[in-house]
Amino acid sequence: MDNRAIGVFDSGLGGLTAVRELRRLLPNENIVYFGDTGRVPYGSRGKEVIARYAHQDIRFLQSHDVKMIVCACGTVSSVLGKELSEEAALPSTGVLLPAAQAACARSTNGRIGIIGTAATIRSGALARAIRSIRPEARIFGNACPLLVPIAEAGLAKSDNVIAREAVAMYLEPLKKEGIDTLILGCTHFPLFYDLINEYFDYQVELVDSGREVARHVQAFLTTHDLLCDPAQQSQCKFYVSDDVEGFVPTAELFLGDTIGHRVSRVEVDTL
Amino acid sequence: MDNRAIGVFDSGLGGLTAVRELRRLLPNENIVYFGDTGRVPYGSRGKEVIARYAHQDIRFLQSHDVKMIVCACGTVSSVLGKELSEEAALPSTGVLLPAAQAACARSTNGRIGIIGTAATIRSGALARAIRSIRPEARIFGNACPLLVPIAEAGLAKSDNVIAREAVAMYLEPLKKEGIDTLILGCTHFPLFYDLINEYFDYQVELVDSGREVARHVQAFLTTHDLLCDPAQQSQCKFYVSDDVEGFVPTAELFLGDTIGHRVSRVEVDTL
Repeated sequence: MDNRAIGVFDSGLGGLTAVRELRRLLPNENIVYFGDTGRVPYGSRGKEVIARYAHQDIRFLQSHDVKMIVCACGTVSSVLGKELSEEAALPSTGVLLPAAQAACARSTNGRIGIIGTAATIRSGALARAIRSIRPEARIFGNACPLLVPIAEAGLAKSDNVIAREAVAMYLEPLKKEGIDTLILGCTHFPLFYDLINEYFDYQVELVDSGREVARHVQAFLTTHDLLCDPAQQSQCKFYVSDDVEGFVPTAELFLGDTIGHRVSRVEVDTL
Repeated sequence: MDNRAIGVFDSGLGGLTAVRELRRLLPNENIVYFGDTGRVPYGSRGKEVIARYAHQDIRFLQSHDVKMIVCACGTVSSVLGKELSEEAALPSTGVLLPAAQAACARSTNGRIGIIGTAATIRSGALARAIRSIRPEARIFGNACPLLVPIAEAGLAKSDNVIAREAVAMYLEPLKKEGIDTLILGCTHFPLFYDLINEYFDYQVELVDSGREVARHVQAFLTTHDLLCDPAQQSQCKFYVSDDVEGFVPTAELFLGDTIGHRVSRVEVDTL
């Protein structure tokens, strides 16, 4: 048993979709969340800058005595890979492997699509993870740089023509390839769940990387006897690197719950 | 006469539209450009974070012995205001006042629209600048958070449905108000020049804040005898805080010229 919190970080708000799933699966666990809202987005940046920012994010969570670090950012998970666990010096996971495993298990025809940020697709890490499990898989990736700002602008709705057109623009090449499974390789993308399902006429399995990482965390903590005392009253604390006021309304959209006064602003770029 | 360079900074690439105009008006001048591509965009962030980043950008330009600092970022110009010149301790200008002056001079009916980032519109600084010149003016502002990422994704083209829909979404309320002049209060927006003109059937005067600040710099250097030796072979140097490779292709779109090997990466977040 371990009553310490689970540490979760993301470039901004997207990781809150993973927090939502964690709270659903593990309602008693304490969670410390850091969203680097002062430097979001990561996915359009180069590898060195992403790695530097991620190291600072990890150091921040380490300073909170967490029992596990969850990188709920598709971009960092892709770019850092194994470095993530070496850096964390704690049990840790990115969203990459859990999503790859789920996609490989669910695909029937072995034609798997991946959408993510430019950095995620460029890294090729998710494709390598899939091939390590199903070497015969055919993988089709597409970078979707506009989906993050569209989600953060609160426009990821079925009746919004910009969101619909962006989804169509990015998914058309994958539809043509006949994929039967699509990995939402960025934790912002669950906000497009309905739009993507509608685009594919509900014929494609969607793998939500935030949901899969939450399942992985549940399994890991259970196996290693690291779950908290079930009688514990759970606490969630949120930290961001930009204004708190700008964070709360959009964050609640991603978290699917109220946040209240549990948010503090911190500076991490000097860590 | 002063052969030192003009220092120009922006949150990312947008300021290059001002550099383009500076080079057109002042082809002999040396220019040092800094684009904070490792932390772009600024316009969606809170005031304190924007001010902190801007101070670091200014310190970087100061370290290059420039004769004048041009803040080619609508967001910083709006948020810092007079602090900009105090901070710079050098002749300096933002894009705010030159754009306000041009709009007041060109508007016939006194109904002036402003588009910019969320931070620019929230600050109200451009509206105050207009009212200080034309107190009777009616001012209509709208924040356009998606236009920056659409421009940076290279989609700001007349035949792109996402760009067209975004322009229509943001400009419709201003059209309804019967504006005859529109300030493009963000140096990314000249890339939407044709799209915006088409949306208004060429019936609205567009004020390009990058072009206006270049005119202001020309007038200032001329008046204060700070122009360079006209026989000087001009040099432009570009510095960015993210990968150089990711910068060049999109930067050339904004600059309207080739950039070649004149770009270096620097870290400014520790300044």
